[in-house]
Amino acid sequence: MGKINMDPQPLLLPLPAVLASCAHEDKRSIITLAWAGIISSMPPRIGLGIRPQRFSYNLIAASGEFAVSLPDENLMKAVHVCGSKSGREIDKFKELGLTPVRGKEITSPIIGEAPVTLECKLDRIVEMEGSHHLFIGEIKNVLVEENILNEEGRVDPKKAGIITFGGGNYWRWGSFLESRQS
Amino acid sequence: MGKINMDPQPLLLPLPAVLASCAHEDKRSIITLAWAGIISSMPPRIGLGIRPQRFSYNLIAASGEFAVSLPDENLMKAVHVCGSKSGREIDKFKELGLTPVRGKEITSPIIGEAPVTLECKLDRIVEMEGSHHLFIGEIKNVLVEENILNEEGRVDPKKAGIITFGGGNYWRWGSFLESRQS
Repeated sequence: MGKINMDPQPLLLPLPAVLASCAHEDKRSIITLAWAGIISSMPPRIGLGIRPQRFSYNLIAASGEFAVSLPDENLMKAVHVCGSKSGREIDKFKELGLTPVRGKEITSPIIGEAPVTLECKLDRIVEMEGSHHLFIGEIKNVLVEENILNEEGRVDPKKAGIITFGGGNYWRWGSFLESRQS
Repeated sequence: MGKINMDPQPLLLPLPAVLASCAHEDKRSIITLAWAGIISSMPPRIGLGIRPQRFSYNLIAASGEFAVSLPDENLMKAVHVCGSKSGREIDKFKELGLTPVRGKEITSPIIGEAPVTLECKLDRIVEMEGSHHLFIGEIKNVLVEENILNEEGRVDPKKAGIITFGGGNYWRWGSFLESRQS
């Protein structure tokens, strides 16, 4: 077997499937995003690629805040719905029966059912030609379910059951291979 | 059990563990990065967070190119070494016995042993206060091993055995959960 060239495409693996929640004035929404990545450690910053025509784009731009929740299997319905329906038509918290929770550092509603949430303040929007603009946020607080921590007090992604994305499918978290220290 | 607040930290899950290769004049290197994410679909763009003091930072800035390879288990040694040693001291291709391959769209060396490689042209560097700057590259070609494609001609991440990163550990790709279409 050999290698072949394929059309240019956004083929990073694994991809996350995050639920970004946001609000401005009396509007709120949740958007599913796979275009998400960490940008820096100090301060911790995250980048999200968002299409300008999405309802959440303007909510985040106006409020200067967003929350990034990492879903487990219990949130699969939210992952599907928040990736395909617009918040212009439905209140996704209500439609999905999700609990909007108040965070520590932001006023945007947080998904109470999510095992991990990053509370973020918008740092800047990098506008680009093409489909998506890049939202860069600084992570100001991390909210986690206590029972997904390991003995060292770190989030154990397998215990948390965080889902992953890639090749058009969602996947369960895999088995342990090696620690970074080895 | 309840939720607790944790210190602000770059806690996205899953994270990729990519091997970015690059060259300028007679220097070449490979750097392991977990701070990587897709930014846009059209054109396909990827973002990499790189510390200014890293050897690869200047190689990419000077050449305007880089290749992003997605490692499988056979490349774990490369993931460890390229994340901990500097290309100022060793030629990582030679040290690791990796085959530098010529790509279609860039002249930077590609890791021949990688199942998937994205050939990228540097679009811009977003300088930021703090630990990392953001390199944004446009994906100009995708090179894949033919035997990791599924029946629809898409990369099957499980068949490819791509590794994932999170919580300080490397993990095997998990089991199928749901397709995005459902």
